[in-house]
Amino acid sequence: MVKQDRAVRTRQAILAAAAKVFEDRGYQAATITEILATANVTKGALYFHFESKEHLAQGVLAEQDQRLVVPARHSKVQEVVDTVALHAHRLQTDPMVRAGVRLSLDQQATELDRSGPFLRWSEIVLGLLEEARGELLPHVVPSETADVLVGSFAGVQAMSQIISGYQDLDRRVSQLLRHILPNVVLASVLATVDLSAGRGAAVYEEASRAATAPERAVLTAG
Amino acid sequence: MVKQDRAVRTRQAILAAAAKVFEDRGYQAATITEILATANVTKGALYFHFESKEHLAQGVLAEQDQRLVVPARHSKVQEVVDTVALHAHRLQTDPMVRAGVRLSLDQQATELDRSGPFLRWSEIVLGLLEEARGELLPHVVPSETADVLVGSFAGVQAMSQIISGYQDLDRRVSQLLRHILPNVVLASVLATVDLSAGRGAAVYEEASRAATAPERAVLTAG
Repeated sequence: MVKQDRAVRTRQAILAAAAKVFEDRGYQAATITEILATANVTKGALYFHFESKEHLAQGVLAEQDQRLVVPARHSKVQEVVDTVALHAHRLQTDPMVRAGVRLSLDQQATELDRSGPFLRWSEIVLGLLEEARGELLPHVVPSETADVLVGSFAGVQAMSQIISGYQDLDRRVSQLLRHILPNVVLASVLATVDLSAGRGAAVYEEASRAATAPERAVLTAG
Repeated sequence: MVKQDRAVRTRQAILAAAAKVFEDRGYQAATITEILATANVTKGALYFHFESKEHLAQGVLAEQDQRLVVPARHSKVQEVVDTVALHAHRLQTDPMVRAGVRLSLDQQATELDRSGPFLRWSEIVLGLLEEARGELLPHVVPSETADVLVGSFAGVQAMSQIISGYQDLDRRVSQLLRHILPNVVLASVLATVDLSAGRGAAVYEEASRAATAPERAVLTAG
Protein backbone atom coordinates (compact mmCIF):
# COMPACT_ATOMS: atom_id res chain seq x y z
CA MET A 1 0.00 0.00 0.00
CA VAL A 2 2.85 2.36 0.90
CA LYS A 3 4.58 1.36 -2.34
CA GLN A 4 1.39 2.09 -4.31
CA ASP A 5 1.01 5.49 -2.64
CA ARG A 6 4.55 6.34 -3.65
CA ALA A 7 3.84 5.24 -7.25
CA VAL A 8 0.76 7.47 -7.32
CA ARG A 9 2.77 10.39 -5.95
CA THR A 10 5.57 9.83 -8.49
CA ARG A 11 3.07 9.67 -11.33
CA GLN A 12 1.45 12.93 -10.16
CA ALA A 13 4.87 14.61 -9.81
CA ILE A 14 5.75 13.61 -13.38
CA LEU A 15 2.39 14.84 -14.70
CA ALA A 16 2.74 18.14 -12.83
CA ALA A 17 6.22 18.61 -14.33
CA ALA A 18 4.97 17.69 -17.79
CA ALA A 19 2.07 20.15 -17.40
CA LYS A 20 4.51 22.93 -16.49
CA VAL A 21 6.90 22.21 -19.36
CA PHE A 22 4.08 21.85 -21.93
CA GLU A 23 2.62 25.14 -20.74
CA ASP A 24 5.99 26.96 -20.84
CA ARG A 25 7.25 25.57 -24.16
CA GLY A 26 4.22 24.22 -26.02
CA TYR A 27 4.03 20.58 -27.04
CA GLN A 28 6.40 20.78 -30.00
CA ALA A 29 9.36 22.32 -28.17
CA ALA A 30 8.90 20.40 -24.90
CA THR A 31 11.44 17.63 -24.26
CA ILE A 32 11.39 14.59 -21.97
CA THR A 33 14.80 15.73 -20.71
CA GLU A 34 13.32 18.97 -19.38
CA ILE A 35 10.31 17.15 -17.90
CA LEU A 36 12.70 14.74 -16.16
CA ALA A 37 14.73 17.60 -14.70
CA THR A 38 11.59 19.45 -13.57
CA ALA A 39 10.00 16.34 -11.99
CA ASN A 40 13.29 15.37 -10.35
CA VAL A 41 12.66 11.64 -10.90
CA THR A 42 14.78 9.00 -12.59
CA LYS A 43 14.45 8.21 -16.27
CA GLY A 44 13.37 4.69 -15.24
CA ALA A 45 10.54 6.04 -13.09
CA LEU A 46 9.31 8.30 -15.88
CA TYR A 47 9.33 5.58 -18.54
CA PHE A 48 7.66 3.16 -16.11
CA HIS A 49 4.63 5.50 -16.06
CA PHE A 50 4.77 7.11 -19.54
CA GLU A 51 6.48 5.58 -22.54
CA SER A 52 6.71 8.74 -24.68
CA LYS A 53 6.14 12.50 -24.84
CA GLU A 54 2.78 11.78 -26.42
CA HIS A 55 1.76 9.59 -23.48
CA LEU A 56 2.80 12.36 -21.09
CA ALA A 57 0.65 14.81 -23.04
CA GLN A 58 -2.32 12.43 -23.06
CA GLY A 59 -1.86 12.06 -19.30
CA VAL A 60 -2.03 15.83 -18.83
CA LEU A 61 -5.02 16.09 -21.21
CA ALA A 62 -6.85 13.35 -19.26
CA GLU A 63 -6.46 15.05 -15.87
CA GLN A 64 -8.88 17.90 -16.65
CA ASP A 65 -12.02 15.77 -16.60
CA GLN A 66 -11.04 13.62 -13.64
CA ARG A 67 -10.88 13.95 -9.87
CA LEU A 68 -13.45 16.39 -8.45
CA VAL A 69 -17.05 15.27 -8.85
CA VAL A 70 -19.99 17.65 -8.61
CA PRO A 71 -22.34 16.78 -5.71
CA ALA A 72 -25.78 15.47 -6.70
CA ARG A 73 -28.46 18.20 -6.99
CA HIS A 74 -32.21 18.23 -6.96
CA SER A 75 -32.11 19.54 -10.56
CA LYS A 76 -29.90 17.80 -13.13
CA VAL A 77 -29.56 21.08 -15.00
CA GLN A 78 -27.94 22.52 -11.88
CA GLU A 79 -25.42 19.65 -12.11
CA VAL A 80 -24.63 20.69 -15.70
CA VAL A 81 -24.16 24.29 -14.59
CA ASP A 82 -22.06 23.21 -11.60
CA THR A 83 -19.86 21.01 -13.79
CA VAL A 84 -19.17 23.92 -16.13
CA ALA A 85 -18.66 26.40 -13.27
CA LEU A 86 -16.36 24.02 -11.40
CA HIS A 87 -14.27 23.49 -14.53
CA ALA A 88 -13.99 27.26 -14.97
CA HIS A 89 -12.93 27.63 -11.35
CA ARG A 90 -10.29 24.90 -11.63
CA LEU A 91 -8.94 26.51 -14.81
CA GLN A 92 -8.11 29.56 -12.69
CA THR A 93 -6.71 27.66 -9.71
CA ASP A 94 -5.28 24.30 -10.84
CA PRO A 95 -2.15 24.43 -13.06
CA MET A 96 -2.81 20.85 -14.25
CA VAL A 97 -6.30 21.69 -15.54
CA ARG A 98 -5.01 24.87 -17.17
CA ALA A 99 -2.16 23.00 -18.86
CA GLY A 100 -4.58 20.33 -20.14
CA VAL A 101 -6.96 22.89 -21.63
CA ARG A 102 -4.12 24.85 -23.21
CA LEU A 103 -2.57 21.69 -24.60
CA SER A 104 -5.88 20.71 -26.17
CA LEU A 105 -5.77 24.04 -28.08
CA ASP A 106 -2.02 23.81 -28.95
CA GLN A 107 -2.05 24.05 -32.72
CA GLN A 108 1.61 23.16 -33.15
CA ALA A 109 0.98 19.75 -31.53
CA THR A 110 0.16 18.30 -34.93
CA GLU A 111 1.15 14.70 -34.13
CA LEU A 112 -0.82 14.73 -30.87
CA ASP A 113 -4.46 13.62 -31.01
CA ARG A 114 -6.16 16.47 -29.16
CA SER A 115 -9.74 15.39 -29.81
CA GLY A 116 -9.90 13.37 -26.56
CA PRO A 117 -10.75 16.19 -24.14
CA PHE A 118 -13.44 17.56 -26.47
CA LEU A 119 -15.02 14.14 -26.99
CA ARG A 120 -14.84 13.21 -23.28
CA TRP A 121 -16.30 16.52 -22.16
CA SER A 122 -19.07 16.17 -24.74
CA GLU A 123 -19.84 12.70 -23.38
CA ILE A 124 -19.88 13.92 -19.76
CA VAL A 125 -22.23 16.81 -20.60
CA LEU A 126 -24.35 14.57 -22.84
CA GLY A 127 -24.75 12.07 -19.97
CA LEU A 128 -25.92 14.84 -17.64
CA LEU A 129 -28.31 16.25 -20.25
CA GLU A 130 -29.81 12.83 -20.88
CA GLU A 131 -30.45 12.42 -17.18
CA ALA A 132 -31.96 15.93 -17.25
CA ARG A 133 -34.33 15.04 -20.14
CA GLY A 134 -37.46 15.86 -18.11
CA GLU A 135 -36.09 19.33 -17.33
CA LEU A 136 -35.36 20.21 -20.97
CA LEU A 137 -37.47 21.82 -23.68
CA PRO A 138 -38.98 19.24 -26.04
CA HIS A 139 -37.04 20.34 -29.17
CA VAL A 140 -33.60 19.85 -27.54
CA VAL A 141 -31.20 17.31 -29.09
CA PRO A 142 -28.90 16.59 -26.11
CA SER A 143 -25.88 15.60 -28.24
CA GLU A 144 -26.04 18.90 -30.16
CA THR A 145 -26.42 20.94 -26.99
CA ALA A 146 -23.51 19.07 -25.37
CA ASP A 147 -21.27 19.85 -28.37
CA VAL A 148 -22.32 23.51 -28.39
CA LEU A 149 -21.61 23.86 -24.65
CA VAL A 150 -18.18 22.21 -24.87
CA GLY A 151 -17.09 24.08 -28.00
CA SER A 152 -18.32 27.47 -26.85
CA PHE A 153 -16.77 27.03 -23.40
CA ALA A 154 -13.38 26.34 -25.02
CA GLY A 155 -13.56 29.63 -26.89
CA VAL A 156 -14.91 31.74 -24.04
CA GLN A 157 -12.10 30.55 -21.76
CA ALA A 158 -9.49 31.31 -24.46
CA MET A 159 -10.94 34.80 -24.99
CA SER A 160 -10.94 35.42 -21.23
CA GLN A 161 -7.36 34.21 -20.88
CA ILE A 162 -6.15 36.39 -23.76
CA ILE A 163 -8.05 39.55 -22.76
CA SER A 164 -7.89 39.44 -18.95
CA GLY A 165 -5.69 36.51 -17.82
CA TYR A 166 -8.89 34.77 -16.61
CA GLN A 167 -9.94 37.73 -14.40
CA ASP A 168 -13.30 37.86 -16.17
CA LEU A 169 -13.76 34.11 -16.74
CA ASP A 170 -16.57 33.57 -14.20
CA ARG A 171 -18.54 36.48 -15.63
CA ARG A 172 -18.03 35.33 -19.24
CA VAL A 173 -19.03 31.74 -18.45
CA SER A 174 -22.11 32.93 -16.59
CA GLN A 175 -23.07 35.08 -19.60
CA LEU A 176 -22.53 32.15 -21.96
CA LEU A 177 -24.87 29.94 -19.90
CA ARG A 178 -27.46 32.73 -19.69
CA HIS A 179 -27.44 32.93 -23.50
CA ILE A 180 -27.76 29.19 -24.13
CA LEU A 181 -29.79 27.66 -21.29
CA PRO A 182 -33.08 29.56 -21.76
CA ASN A 183 -33.31 27.84 -25.14
CA VAL A 184 -32.56 24.41 -23.64
CA VAL A 185 -34.18 24.26 -20.19
CA LEU A 186 -37.84 24.54 -19.14
CA ALA A 187 -38.45 28.05 -17.75
CA SER A 188 -39.89 26.56 -14.53
CA VAL A 189 -36.63 24.66 -13.95
CA LEU A 190 -34.32 27.48 -15.02
CA ALA A 191 -35.95 29.77 -12.45
CA THR A 192 -34.54 27.49 -9.71
CA VAL A 193 -31.02 27.20 -11.17
CA ASP A 194 -28.13 29.23 -9.75
CA LEU A 195 -26.16 30.69 -12.68
CA SER A 196 -24.27 33.33 -10.71
CA ALA A 197 -20.59 34.02 -11.34
CA GLY A 198 -19.47 32.86 -7.87
CA ARG A 199 -20.95 29.40 -8.34
CA GLY A 200 -17.67 27.68 -9.35
CA ALA A 201 -15.79 28.60 -6.18
CA ALA A 202 -18.72 27.50 -3.99
CA VAL A 203 -19.02 24.14 -5.75
CA TYR A 204 -15.27 23.63 -5.47
CA GLU A 205 -15.38 24.18 -1.69
CA GLU A 206 -18.29 21.80 -1.36
CA ALA A 207 -16.76 19.11 -3.60
CA SER A 208 -13.41 19.35 -1.79
CA ARG A 209 -15.10 18.89 1.62
CA ALA A 210 -17.10 15.96 0.26
CA ALA A 211 -14.00 14.23 -1.12
CA THR A 212 -12.72 11.39 1.07
CA ALA A 213 -9.25 11.71 2.62
CA PRO A 214 -7.23 9.82 -0.04
CA GLU A 215 -9.00 11.70 -2.83
CA ARG A 216 -8.17 14.94 -1.08
CA ALA A 217 -4.51 13.90 -0.98
CA VAL A 218 -4.55 13.47 -4.76
CA LEU A 219 -6.27 16.82 -5.12
CA THR A 220 -3.56 18.64 -3.19
CA ALA A 221 -0.85 16.94 -5.22
CA GLY A 222 -2.26 18.35 -8.49
CA MET B 1 -0.68 54.08 -59.64
CA VAL B 2 1.28 51.15 -61.07
CA LYS B 3 3.89 51.67 -58.35
CA GLN B 4 1.17 51.64 -55.68
CA ASP B 5 -0.35 48.45 -57.10
CA ARG B 6 3.02 46.78 -56.89
CA ALA B 7 3.44 47.90 -53.26
CA VAL B 8 0.03 46.45 -52.43
CA ARG B 9 0.93 43.19 -54.16
CA THR B 10 4.29 43.01 -52.35
CA ARG B 11 2.62 43.64 -49.00
CA GLN B 12 0.07 40.89 -49.70
CA ALA B 13 2.82 38.48 -50.78
CA ILE B 14 4.71 39.15 -47.54
CA LEU B 15 1.56 38.69 -45.44
CA ALA B 16 0.70 35.45 -47.26
CA ALA B 17 4.22 34.14 -46.60
CA ALA B 18 4.05 35.22 -42.94
CA ALA B 19 0.66 33.51 -42.59
CA LYS B 20 2.10 30.28 -43.97
CA VAL B 21 5.20 30.34 -41.75
CA PHE B 22 3.21 31.26 -38.62
CA GLU B 23 0.78 28.43 -39.35
CA ASP B 24 3.56 25.89 -39.98
CA ARG B 25 5.84 26.84 -37.09
CA GLY B 26 3.75 28.79 -34.59
CA TYR B 27 4.64 32.37 -33.67
CA GLN B 28 7.51 31.54 -31.34
CA ALA B 29 9.52 29.39 -33.75
CA ALA B 30 8.79 31.46 -36.88
CA THR B 31 11.66 33.60 -38.17
CA ILE B 32 11.80 36.61 -40.46
CA THR B 33 14.47 34.74 -42.45
CA GLU B 34 11.99 31.98 -43.32
CA ILE B 35 9.23 34.50 -44.10
CA LEU B 36 11.67 36.34 -46.41
CA ALA B 37 12.57 33.11 -48.22
CA THR B 38 8.91 32.11 -48.55
CA ALA B 39 7.78 35.53 -49.80
CA ASN B 40 10.71 35.78 -52.20
CA VAL B 41 11.12 39.52 -51.60
CA THR B 42 14.13 41.56 -50.51
CA LYS B 43 14.85 42.29 -46.88
CA GLY B 44 14.41 45.98 -47.71
CA ALA B 45 10.93 45.39 -49.12
CA LEU B 46 9.88 43.39 -46.07
CA TYR B 47 11.16 45.97 -43.57
CA PHE B 48 9.56 48.76 -45.61
CA HIS B 49 6.15 47.20 -44.88
CA PHE B 50 6.72 45.50 -41.49
CA GLU B 51 9.39 46.50 -39.01
CA SER B 52 9.37 43.30 -36.91
CA LYS B 53 8.00 39.78 -36.51
CA GLU B 54 5.34 41.21 -34.22
CA HIS B 55 4.21 43.68 -36.90
CA LEU B 56 4.00 40.81 -39.39
CA ALA B 57 1.86 38.86 -36.92
CA GLN B 58 -0.40 41.86 -36.28
CA GLY B 59 -0.73 42.23 -40.06
CA VAL B 60 -1.89 38.62 -40.36
CA LEU B 61 -4.22 38.99 -37.36
CA ALA B 62 -5.76 42.13 -38.89
CA GLU B 63 -6.57 40.49 -42.24
CA GLN B 64 -9.34 38.26 -40.85
CA ASP B 65 -11.82 41.05 -40.22
CA GLN B 66 -11.09 42.99 -43.39
CA ARG B 67 -11.90 42.75 -47.09
CA LEU B 68 -15.22 41.00 -47.80
CA VAL B 69 -18.27 42.91 -46.61
CA VAL B 70 -21.65 41.29 -46.06
CA PRO B 71 -24.35 42.76 -48.34
CA ALA B 72 -27.08 44.80 -46.63
CA ARG B 73 -30.16 42.77 -45.64
CA HIS B 74 -33.73 43.59 -44.81
CA SER B 75 -33.08 42.21 -41.30
CA LYS B 76 -30.01 43.32 -39.36
CA VAL B 77 -30.01 39.99 -37.53
CA GLN B 78 -29.54 38.31 -40.91
CA GLU B 79 -26.44 40.52 -41.34
CA VAL B 80 -25.09 39.23 -38.01
CA VAL B 81 -25.75 35.63 -39.11
CA ASP B 82 -24.21 36.28 -42.53
CA THR B 83 -21.11 37.86 -40.97
CA VAL B 84 -20.58 34.80 -38.77
CA ALA B 85 -21.35 32.35 -41.60
CA LEU B 86 -19.06 34.19 -44.02
CA HIS B 87 -16.23 34.13 -41.49
CA ALA B 88 -16.73 30.38 -41.03
CA HIS B 89 -16.67 29.89 -44.79
CA ARG B 90 -13.48 31.93 -45.21
CA LEU B 91 -11.84 29.95 -42.37
CA GLN B 92 -12.26 26.87 -44.56
CA THR B 93 -11.19 28.47 -47.83
CA ASP B 94 -8.79 31.37 -47.15
CA PRO B 95 -5.35 30.46 -45.72
CA MET B 96 -4.87 34.05 -44.50
CA VAL B 97 -8.05 34.02 -42.42
CA ARG B 98 -7.20 30.58 -41.04
CA ALA B 99 -3.68 31.68 -40.12
CA GLY B 100 -5.03 34.78 -38.37
CA VAL B 101 -7.53 32.82 -36.30
CA ARG B 102 -4.95 30.20 -35.38
CA LEU B 103 -2.41 32.88 -34.48
CA SER B 104 -4.95 34.56 -32.19
CA LEU B 105 -5.17 31.24 -30.27
CA ASP B 106 -1.38 30.57 -30.31
CA GLN B 107 -0.58 30.25 -26.63
CA GLN B 108 3.18 30.25 -27.10
CA ALA B 109 3.00 33.75 -28.61
CA THR B 110 3.35 35.25 -25.15
CA GLU B 111 4.95 38.54 -26.25
CA LEU B 112 2.31 39.07 -28.96
CA ASP B 113 -0.84 40.99 -28.02
CA ARG B 114 -3.54 38.66 -29.35
CA SER B 115 -6.51 40.52 -27.91
CA GLY B 116 -6.95 42.62 -31.09
CA PRO B 117 -8.98 40.15 -33.18
CA PHE B 118 -11.30 39.36 -30.24
CA LEU B 119 -11.87 43.05 -29.47
CA ARG B 120 -12.32 44.00 -33.12
CA TRP B 121 -14.75 41.16 -33.80
CA SER B 122 -16.70 42.08 -30.65
CA GLU B 123 -16.92 45.65 -31.90
CA ILE B 124 -18.08 44.59 -35.36
CA VAL B 125 -20.78 42.30 -33.92
CA LEU B 126 -21.74 44.91 -31.32
CA GLY B 127 -22.21 47.50 -34.08
CA LEU B 128 -24.50 45.15 -35.99
CA LEU B 129 -26.48 44.25 -32.85
CA GLU B 130 -26.95 47.92 -31.98
CA GLU B 131 -28.32 48.57 -35.45
CA ALA B 132 -30.56 45.52 -34.92
CA ARG B 133 -31.91 46.84 -31.59
CA GLY B 134 -35.54 46.83 -32.80
CA GLU B 135 -35.22 43.14 -33.78
CA LEU B 136 -33.88 42.01 -30.40
CA LEU B 137 -35.62 40.88 -27.23
CA PRO B 138 -35.89 43.69 -24.65
CA HIS B 139 -33.58 42.07 -22.04
CA VAL B 140 -30.61 41.79 -24.43
CA VAL B 141 -27.39 43.66 -23.57
CA PRO B 142 -25.74 43.91 -27.01
CA SER B 143 -22.16 44.10 -25.67
CA GLU B 144 -22.62 40.88 -23.69
CA THR B 145 -24.21 39.08 -26.62
CA ALA B 146 -21.41 40.26 -28.92
CA ASP B 147 -18.77 38.91 -26.51
CA VAL B 148 -20.60 35.59 -26.14
CA LEU B 149 -20.90 35.20 -29.94
CA VAL B 150 -17.22 36.00 -30.55
CA GLY B 151 -15.88 33.83 -27.72
CA SER B 152 -18.10 30.86 -28.46
CA PHE B 153 -17.34 31.02 -32.19
CA ALA B 154 -13.60 30.86 -31.43
CA GLY B 155 -14.11 27.64 -29.47
CA VAL B 156 -16.53 26.00 -31.87
CA GLN B 157 -14.13 26.57 -34.78
CA ALA B 158 -11.22 25.15 -32.74
CA MET B 159 -13.26 22.07 -31.78
CA SER B 160 -14.30 21.57 -35.42
CA GLN B 161 -10.72 21.93 -36.62
CA ILE B 162 -9.42 19.43 -34.06
CA ILE B 163 -12.16 16.84 -34.50
CA SER B 164 -12.88 17.02 -38.24
CA GLY B 165 -10.40 19.38 -39.93
CA TYR B 166 -13.30 21.86 -40.39
CA GLN B 167 -15.47 19.28 -42.23
CA ASP B 168 -18.28 19.88 -39.71
CA LEU B 169 -17.70 23.62 -39.17
CA ASP B 170 -20.82 24.87 -41.00
CA ARG B 171 -23.01 22.45 -39.06
CA ARG B 172 -21.44 23.36 -35.70
CA VAL B 173 -21.72 27.11 -36.34
CA SER B 174 -25.35 26.71 -37.41
CA GLN B 175 -26.05 24.76 -34.18
CA LEU B 176 -24.31 27.42 -32.10
CA LEU B 177 -26.49 30.16 -33.61
CA ARG B 178 -29.63 28.05 -33.14
CA HIS B 179 -28.77 27.76 -29.45
CA ILE B 180 -28.05 31.45 -28.86
CA LEU B 181 -30.27 33.48 -31.18
CA PRO B 182 -33.73 32.38 -29.89
CA ASN B 183 -32.75 34.02 -26.61
CA VAL B 184 -31.58 37.21 -28.34
CA VAL B 185 -33.89 37.83 -31.31
CA LEU B 186 -37.65 38.44 -31.48
CA ALA B 187 -39.37 35.22 -32.59
CA SER B 188 -41.13 37.07 -35.41
CA VAL B 189 -37.76 38.19 -36.79
CA LEU B 190 -35.98 34.88 -36.22
CA ALA B 191 -38.65 33.11 -38.27
CA THR B 192 -37.43 35.06 -41.33
CA VAL B 193 -33.70 34.50 -40.74
CA ASP B 194 -31.77 31.88 -42.74
CA LEU B 195 -29.56 29.94 -40.31
CA SER B 196 -28.86 27.00 -42.61
CA ALA B 197 -25.40 25.44 -42.82
CA GLY B 198 -24.87 26.40 -46.48
CA ARG B 199 -25.35 30.11 -45.78
CA GLY B 200 -21.63 30.99 -45.61
CA ALA B 201 -20.81 29.74 -49.11
CA ALA B 202 -23.83 31.55 -50.58
CA VAL B 203 -22.92 34.84 -48.88
CA TYR B 204 -19.32 34.47 -50.06
CA GLU B 205 -20.44 34.08 -53.68
CA GLU B 206 -22.71 37.08 -53.39
CA ALA B 207 -20.12 39.27 -51.65
CA SER B 208 -17.44 38.32 -54.19
CA ARG B 209 -19.73 39.25 -57.09
CA ALA B 210 -20.61 42.53 -55.39
CA ALA B 211 -16.97 43.47 -54.86
CA THR B 212 -15.63 46.00 -57.37
CA ALA B 213 -12.81 44.96 -59.70
CA PRO B 214 -9.81 46.28 -57.69
CA GLU B 215 -11.23 44.77 -54.49
CA ARG B 216 -11.61 41.47 -56.28
CA ALA B 217 -7.94 41.66 -57.29
CA VAL B 218 -6.95 41.98 -53.62
CA LEU B 219 -9.27 39.11 -52.75
CA THR B 220 -7.63 36.78 -55.25
CA ALA B 221 -4.18 37.73 -53.99
CA GLY B 222 -5.10 36.66 -50.44
